[in-house]
Amino acid sequence: MKKIAFIGLGNMGLPMARNLLKAGHELKVFDLVQAAVDELVAEGAKAANDAHDAVAGVDLVVSMLPASRHVEGLYLGDDGLLAFIRAGTLVLECSTISPDAARKVHARAKALGIDLLDAPVSGGTAGAAAGTLTFMVGGDGKTLEKARPVLAAMGKNIFHAGPEGAGQVAKVCNNQVLAVQMIATAEAMALGVANGLDPSALAEIMRQSSGGNWVLERYNPWPGVMANAPASNGYQGGFMAELMAKDLGLAQEAAQLTQNSTPMGALALQLYKMLLKQGKGRQDFSVVQQLFIEPEA
Amino acid sequence: MKKIAFIGLGNMGLPMARNLLKAGHELKVFDLVQAAVDELVAEGAKAANDAHDAVAGVDLVVSMLPASRHVEGLYLGDDGLLAFIRAGTLVLECSTISPDAARKVHARAKALGIDLLDAPVSGGTAGAAAGTLTFMVGGDGKTLEKARPVLAAMGKNIFHAGPEGAGQVAKVCNNQVLAVQMIATAEAMALGVANGLDPSALAEIMRQSSGGNWVLERYNPWPGVMANAPASNGYQGGFMAELMAKDLGLAQEAAQLTQNSTPMGALALQLYKMLLKQGKGRQDFSVVQQLFIEPEA
Amino acid sequence: MKKIAFIGLGNMGLPMARNLLKAGHELKVFDLVQAAVDELVAEGAKAANDAHDAVAGVDLVVSMLPASRHVEGLYLGDDGLLAFIRAGTLVLECSTISPDAARKVHARAKALGIDLLDAPVSGGTAGAAAGTLTFMVGGDGKTLEKARPVLAAMGKNIFHAGPEGAGQVAKVCNNQVLAVQMIATAEAMALGVANGLDPSALAEIMRQSSGGNWVLERYNPWPGVMANAPASNGYQGGFMAELMAKDLGLAQEAAQLTQNSTPMGALALQLYKMLLKQGKGRQDFSVVQQLFIEPEA
Amino acid sequence: MKKIAFIGLGNMGLPMARNLLKAGHELKVFDLVQAAVDELVAEGAKAANDAHDAVAGVDLVVSMLPASRHVEGLYLGDDGLLAFIRAGTLVLECSTISPDAARKVHARAKALGIDLLDAPVSGGTAGAAAGTLTFMVGGDGKTLEKARPVLAAMGKNIFHAGPEGAGQVAKVCNNQVLAVQMIATAEAMALGVANGLDPSALAEIMRQSSGGNWVLERYNPWPGVMANAPASNGYQGGFMAELMAKDLGLAQEAAQLTQNSTPMGALALQLYKMLLKQGKGRQDFSVVQQLFIEPEA
Repeated sequence: MKKIAFIGLGNMGLPMARNLLKAGHELKVFDLVQAAVDELVAEGAKAANDAHDAVAGVDLVVSMLPASRHVEGLYLGDDGLLAFIRAGTLVLECSTISPDAARKVHARAKALGIDLLDAPVSGGTAGAAAGTLTFMVGGDGKTLEKARPVLAAMGKNIFHAGPEGAGQVAKVCNNQVLAVQMIATAEAMALGVANGLDPSALAEIMRQSSGGNWVLERYNPWPGVMANAPASNGYQGGFMAELMAKDLGLAQEAAQLTQNSTPMGALALQLYKMLLKQGKGRQDFSVVQQLFIEPEA
Repeated sequence: MKKIAFIGLGNMGLPMARNLLKAGHELKVFDLVQAAVDELVAEGAKAANDAHDAVAGVDLVVSMLPASRHVEGLYLGDDGLLAFIRAGTLVLECSTISPDAARKVHARAKALGIDLLDAPVSGGTAGAAAGTLTFMVGGDGKTLEKARPVLAAMGKNIFHAGPEGAGQVAKVCNNQVLAVQMIATAEAMALGVANGLDPSALAEIMRQSSGGNWVLERYNPWPGVMANAPASNGYQGGFMAELMAKDLGLAQEAAQLTQNSTPMGALALQLYKMLLKQGKGRQDFSVVQQLFIEPEA
Repeated sequence: MKKIAFIGLGNMGLPMARNLLKAGHELKVFDLVQAAVDELVAEGAKAANDAHDAVAGVDLVVSMLPASRHVEGLYLGDDGLLAFIRAGTLVLECSTISPDAARKVHARAKALGIDLLDAPVSGGTAGAAAGTLTFMVGGDGKTLEKARPVLAAMGKNIFHAGPEGAGQVAKVCNNQVLAVQMIATAEAMALGVANGLDPSALAEIMRQSSGGNWVLERYNPWPGVMANAPASNGYQGGFMAELMAKDLGLAQEAAQLTQNSTPMGALALQLYKMLLKQGKGRQDFSVVQQLFIEPEA
Repeated sequence: MKKIAFIGLGNMGLPMARNLLKAGHELKVFDLVQAAVDELVAEGAKAANDAHDAVAGVDLVVSMLPASRHVEGLYLGDDGLLAFIRAGTLVLECSTISPDAARKVHARAKALGIDLLDAPVSGGTAGAAAGTLTFMVGGDGKTLEKARPVLAAMGKNIFHAGPEGAGQVAKVCNNQVLAVQMIATAEAMALGVANGLDPSALAEIMRQSSGGNWVLERYNPWPGVMANAPASNGYQGGFMAELMAKDLGLAQEAAQLTQNSTPMGALALQLYKMLLKQGKGRQDFSVVQQLFIEPEA
């Protein structure tokens, strides 16, 4: 069992940290929101005064923050955390950030002899709670083997995507495909229904045919097709449109650095930003369905 | 066993007709290409002199033609085939045509007491040869039950999509989703590889994650990821880009009639037409991958 | 002065016919809406009982109808008007229809020795009233010279676009560019204003720079920039979004026949259909601005 | 007459500096490329040893660099130039960079009492040589009045776009509209020609109609329509596609910060990156025409 510092106890971080506690690890936790800290302390974690206090004397650091600037702010700079983590410590940076930012943090860690992995997750808050997240990991393969038992306490699928930053690249590639096939599915559902097809019949045909995809398997955007999907619950819960817009933005940022052309991904981002302007950013990302149908009276 | 007229013995029609022969049906066949007729005659079919001759005295008619105008030309008008088919005959119209054209043929058949189904297929020439096609069927449910044994000799999955024309609608919806997710997958593969990821590793991660889709399961567009995919064989074989462009055009035509907005589907069509202008229309539709990478030296 | 049959007295046709009357021509008019006929009769036109009656004994026929199907319905077929117009008559078909439909009508007219021009207009109802329309004319150049005096009574700019159907092609090309630059201008206005620029200052800079276009000259989509533009009047008046969607649809139909790729034009159509779904089809087409800003409280 | 430091003597900077010399100003110049420095020294400028040397004792600084990172690298940081420029000096930052980077440089200058303007240009190398550039200026209006005589030695149109960074915003808005209308024009030209229209006739009709824009006035992308346009010269000269891609990237970067949706602008960027992958980045940006036609044999 390890001494672990866990920094960032938001919607994802809190249940992830809880699963580490349950697995028997010793946790020092930090977050700006005291209530989140208190919740874990009540379950056995120690509260750190700040991020620097959290990492003192631990074997392993896990961080789960909102965006690139928070991660760069935490780890880099003269007063950044990496300067205070001892060589040989394992750092699992689980935030979804730009591949470029991840590479900067990797470079600094490497220079200091710290074993760092970028390990963004997919699976949402439900997966975080159930300990069934998918980790897409970038960095050294041997480091991943050392980290695997800790990751396994939080997730089910652990993929080695490649070298430094590759976890973030795999994440943005995956989520870009997801966003595009969500929109494509929503377009097709609207087109079929406008032509008199029963939505469930159409969904089932496509699911079993060459149009089949994860959205049709688990997350149909047409209300009523899947009882448990956000679409059948007023587009509440699930993965917020504004988070999908964030990930699509990271994909475009990465595509700019390598001058990759991604017309579908770029269009998906624009459509999600259109939804955000309409005030739908905090609904599930399948709410994109509503761009293609008449609003209800 | 039934007496069946089979009209249209192209790449798809010929193997479909052969499967009906193998199943023990009695076939009268017609095509403008004599060689195709001869091939089936050698296997036991009778050659008809023309389409009118083919349908004389049969229980069931199957047609498999290239486009809406051929189907309308065959069946409609004063001299059209429907006027020469006796009431009560079952007609399986398997061509991929516009839902609107299908509905016109349905309307005329209904007026004449002929039981017609629009039953476009997916599965390609391989599926046609193996008898494992998917049929998406529009029309009366009872008529479908009568047709099911004959369809089962040619295909494996038989879906009732809905009323007249619904088979065509389901087909264009499915193929539009397929085209979009092919392009989205190709964009992601190029982006990941440009960022240093191994194509097979990236493909496997997305396949098992929320970006998963039929393309990642069976038909990866990056050369070398799947040994049997057209991408690993110089984009030969498979489903030609020009046929995908045709289907995307049918989807847009349908979307115009109901004033549906389908930005992803529309963009997919434009990208495929761009490929066609570059002379790649007769390569497999996964060749869209090449829009996103530098040409080889 | 000529004897002219004028068929189709809608928002455009009525003021066009009026200008012909004012120029001293003798008019026989027909429309399904009796009020429109009555209005012109009060100004000196003769009412025809039907379209066939209208064309009997005239030198020249002008038609102005909503869509391809109306024009094909009027002129073609056994009972179509062309069969009742005497050889040598001049027909000015001014509706905006598909180039393909225009070519069909041309072919039939030519076979019958009738001199026909496709002559769609731009300039809107204001231009129709003022007699300042632009005519884009397809057909024989000599025929155009014969028609010019009559066209000049209704319009100011008369362009010979090319052979049969070329007027329609020029019209859809022009309107596609117009729609795209309207949307591009709206995107830029929203982006600039979100970044703190004064909308009038930004509009003026772009107008005088390489971003300059007709929209910036005459028709700015941001409310308040141009006092006379529909945007400053609640997007009332002007050219309805649903008519722009119609023209963009004709452009896509033409692009399909020649397999042209037009990604910008295709996307413009989808965005306009999105607006139509939101119930904004009868507002001016500059209302597309609202896709890019937050709705007012 | 003023003492001016000019930093960055590339394709644009060199002729701009030359015009300042011609106007009688005293110039100290710096560039990493010695040949450019030598050229101006031969015309009367003084060579500075480095950027710091260049700004010592001058009244005014002009910089013209390739990208945001160069400008931030030059001016910001402990060793950055702003720390070595005395309060009250006027700085004209003429590079095209992100609005965000411009605002950072503005903030630092303001803190140090330095009068800085972001003043990106349009008009290309020809405009730079002729002294007819357009300046889009962001920053204080009174500062602009002080700078106006110097700007007037290099350009013809000088626009005050708004506060700090507004010059860059206006530039990216303008260039995004330009790119979109270039592509829209190219699509329309290809569509019209495929339908049998004469390219010059079509271009002229659209130019005089509501599709009219700067591209149709000055820069038609179809070879042969305008003798002086790059399209008629093998797409040589003019404004390189890779520079347009850069500006479209800056526009997307700005749009991300304000969460603006710009579907046309985003698609334009993807199409230009597609061209870059095809090795056409150093041809004029009107080469986008080639995406829409068959390659020549």
